[in-house]
Amino acid sequence: MPVTTEVLEASLLKKSRGVPDSGVSPRSASSPLLAAAEPLPEEIPLEALKKTVLPSPAPALPPVVVEITNGCGGGDEHGHPRKFVMGRNMHGSCLQITEPELNDKETGEKEAYMSAVLAQYKEILVERTKFHLGYPYNLDFNYGALAELQHFSINNLGDPFIESNYGVHSRQFEVGVLDWFAHLWELEKDEYWGYITNCGTEGNLHGILVGREVLPDGILYASRDSHYSVFKAARMYRMEAVKVDTLLSGEINCDDFRKKLTDRKDKPAILNINVGTTVKGAVDDLDLVIQILKEVGYTEDRFYIHIDGALFGLMIPFVKRAPKVSFKKPIGSVSVSGHKFMGCPMPCGVQITRMKHINMLSRNVEYLASRDATIMGSRNGHAPIFLWYTLNHKGYRGFQKEVQRCIRNAHYLTDCLREANFGVMLNELSSTVVFERPQSEALILKWQLACQGKIAHAVIMPSVTVEKLDAFVVELIQARNASIADGNVTIQCIVEEVGANNCACSLHRGARVNSWTKDLGMDGVHMETEI
Amino acid sequence: MPVTTEVLEASLLKKSRGVPDSGVSPRSASSPLLAAAEPLPEEIPLEALKKTVLPSPAPALPPVVVEITNGCGGGDEHGHPRKFVMGRNMHGSCLQITEPELNDKETGEKEAYMSAVLAQYKEILVERTKFHLGYPYNLDFNYGALAELQHFSINNLGDPFIESNYGVHSRQFEVGVLDWFAHLWELEKDEYWGYITNCGTEGNLHGILVGREVLPDGILYASRDSHYSVFKAARMYRMEAVKVDTLLSGEINCDDFRKKLTDRKDKPAILNINVGTTVKGAVDDLDLVIQILKEVGYTEDRFYIHIDGALFGLMIPFVKRAPKVSFKKPIGSVSVSGHKFMGCPMPCGVQITRMKHINMLSRNVEYLASRDATIMGSRNGHAPIFLWYTLNHKGYRGFQKEVQRCIRNAHYLTDCLREANFGVMLNELSSTVVFERPQSEALILKWQLACQGKIAHAVIMPSVTVEKLDAFVVELIQARNASIADGNVTIQCIVEEVGANNCACSLHRGARVNSWTKDLGMDGVHMETEI
Repeated sequence: MPVTTEVLEASLLKKSRGVPDSGVSPRSASSPLLAAAEPLPEEIPLEALKKTVLPSPAPALPPVVVEITNGCGGGDEHGHPRKFVMGRNMHGSCLQITEPELNDKETGEKEAYMSAVLAQYKEILVERTKFHLGYPYNLDFNYGALAELQHFSINNLGDPFIESNYGVHSRQFEVGVLDWFAHLWELEKDEYWGYITNCGTEGNLHGILVGREVLPDGILYASRDSHYSVFKAARMYRMEAVKVDTLLSGEINCDDFRKKLTDRKDKPAILNINVGTTVKGAVDDLDLVIQILKEVGYTEDRFYIHIDGALFGLMIPFVKRAPKVSFKKPIGSVSVSGHKFMGCPMPCGVQITRMKHINMLSRNVEYLASRDATIMGSRNGHAPIFLWYTLNHKGYRGFQKEVQRCIRNAHYLTDCLREANFGVMLNELSSTVVFERPQSEALILKWQLACQGKIAHAVIMPSVTVEKLDAFVVELIQARNASIADGNVTIQCIVEEVGANNCACSLHRGARVNSWTKDLGMDGVHMETEI
Repeated sequence: MPVTTEVLEASLLKKSRGVPDSGVSPRSASSPLLAAAEPLPEEIPLEALKKTVLPSPAPALPPVVVEITNGCGGGDEHGHPRKFVMGRNMHGSCLQITEPELNDKETGEKEAYMSAVLAQYKEILVERTKFHLGYPYNLDFNYGALAELQHFSINNLGDPFIESNYGVHSRQFEVGVLDWFAHLWELEKDEYWGYITNCGTEGNLHGILVGREVLPDGILYASRDSHYSVFKAARMYRMEAVKVDTLLSGEINCDDFRKKLTDRKDKPAILNINVGTTVKGAVDDLDLVIQILKEVGYTEDRFYIHIDGALFGLMIPFVKRAPKVSFKKPIGSVSVSGHKFMGCPMPCGVQITRMKHINMLSRNVEYLASRDATIMGSRNGHAPIFLWYTLNHKGYRGFQKEVQRCIRNAHYLTDCLREANFGVMLNELSSTVVFERPQSEALILKWQLACQGKIAHAVIMPSVTVEKLDAFVVELIQARNASIADGNVTIQCIVEEVGANNCACSLHRGARVNSWTKDLGMDGVHMETEI
């Protein structure tokens, strides 16, 4: 049955049961995480504390943009001056450190002040965690059983497989996690090497460095939609980098890749392949890329493929019809983030590569009694225990269920937005919903949407429920309504970003839906724009 | 009054009140951190659990060393085959992840198994934390007030001074910490930029990268005793690197530096200056280095100095007569670790550089609504809160007291070892005590000593008490006694590492102390070898 916008709005408003419409929500006094806020000592003005800790109810000012025109690398690739976003002055709102007083009374007051700051900060964390859609972080975890580990300085310095003399480590957990991932990606225990990284960037830095050490003259190929850390790696490592065009979906354009590879076929190729791009959640066609390499004449010793599976590397094994990430194919390394789909208090990632590659970047460091194959020396020993705990609890079956629910919810959000006449796109294998950038900055900040140009996205993680999506859509519609003075709104054209089938602007809606009004009937639109 | 070895031993044995002499100590059942170990379900063999979690009582097997002789970068700088330490097989002792069962009863058993693993692991952490001397980590901290933060995925992604749209961050704490350090090193708020890193390596990678972006043709100069991450950076960044000789103390040899700089004076210079080398805790003479740069003809726009103050960067401001680290001198960046002298559950560091340099490695990344000046993208938001908490609690005065105590205790250990006729060295400005590598591997592992060649060191941190040092010296003496079959022991010559004044071997002790026996009088030795 066709759903009108009015019906949808009413239904969502009903479902959302009183979600507030301001940018900052009232505190959830019933949250089990919240201790009752301690009364502040009289000497410390509450307003000053609020100013420094609480988020501003008004939208934050945009950062200052300046043009850099000097010759020191400031220009872009075409020689145009590059715009840099300069630092917003955080000094006014930061929590200044003060020297403790010798006087006992004042010290007691300082303790009270610090407790109050921390209590209020925790409230903010609860609020900000509740309203969050834009970043691919699963915020739903419970590591209460691991709370006591915070008392220890756990450091897996150096190589996970070689114990250093420092005894407060968690290598036994780390290698358990690595084994699990090596098995997932079909590499035998004696043929892989890996470690737990600090984040997705470290994974890409490591994979591309291994590629460069194996093929020192290699050219890096990566699609324009690759994570920015890939091009940062090329700059850091002084490698030639070739940006490959993308399809509308965000996938690498294999025709363009073939052309650019053929033009440079005298040099080895190092490839970054995305399993879930940052903005559109697109999955590059690994099999087609390998086929092209072979057709252009590359033998396996002349190319190295790094898979950036930051978000989707752990989801794709559980999606039907998805291409398989496997070391049975000629790939060199895979990285996935631990704080994204799995969920972890701090950023971390898992890096798996072939043992045979690893000596390329190793050297002896007797101080650590270890080879030096990791990017970082000291390594967070807590993250492996968090991952070990989650993997043991959820297992393959648990992840499978969560992936299915995320993709179902992503389809739900896409349908809601399409029915409400927003431009929206969802890649078949993804849980990243791309849509028009909302006009309300307050709404963007409240829901913590990641934006790029004219588009924003919501990444549907296990912590995102249907109720949350309903509340979001209601606010999105309300914000659009509020911006309409004359009863009409011009919908922004995002055809270049999402294609004609997914754009809701007057031109691409054609004659039938050339303007959006509050009582516009939406019959039939839903089905026509299905991707 | 002169102290004989016998008297010293007896005194230490008495003070140590029954420290066990085996490699593994009995569990401290009274520790407040330990929950009573839960009984294991019958199906899970306790022995198997012990095997996987508990450290082996026997000394671990040495790692397998193989020679790499192929042409893929395996050789050293002289073309000799390089020895690589291969991975010890950790798969046998790791904590394997198992798929959760659907059956409720079995799931309950798995929960019990995991609880038991974690409870035993916590006991090990307590033990390993208790006996630790070799690494520069302050293991004495109490962040109980911050325990609830573990429920949140705190991520300061991108630049600390530019808020991203992700709301669950701790930038207000991070900038507070950065302000404190910028003030310590005398750089104004509007002239510095910095961030909280994952470890000392990230600080060095960042500082040297900034240097290379400012001076793209620059040659990296660093002393042989620099942290291995400095030379790793040069390899990663494809920079020419020149190793400068060191003095016996571990400081950079400025004569050698002058010569090598003069030979290459047509190229800009990027310098890594150590404020506390890894092995000997030596402090390079920054002022002399700057003077040489000027004498050789370098203006300030042709050199960049990065200060690696991993350990001592926070200690040196509180040491009288120590050279000052200050941005009033022509330096470009300073890094210090957060988990070392300050103490933090996970590795972290503080990086401060000049704002004017930072645009050299920035570029616009709209996805983050931020410039890209950090090495890592996602960044641990917990570490800044730990540091903020410690800085507020201890302040300058607190650190000053702790530094004084550490240096006093380092002198105490040095005196004890010298009196017991061990070769030992302590740099004037340091709390790192260098001594002969003990012959007992079990003792090295128990006390987690970091070793290099013939020497080992103990780094005296605030968590190292006199009682702990007494226990250590007693065990060191006992281990040496145990190795003496015929009543005589040959003391290893470490003259190349610590110099004739500090070596205790028969040759360098001369006629007076040409062999060590259990009843050797030590009169006068102490004073003569004072450094």
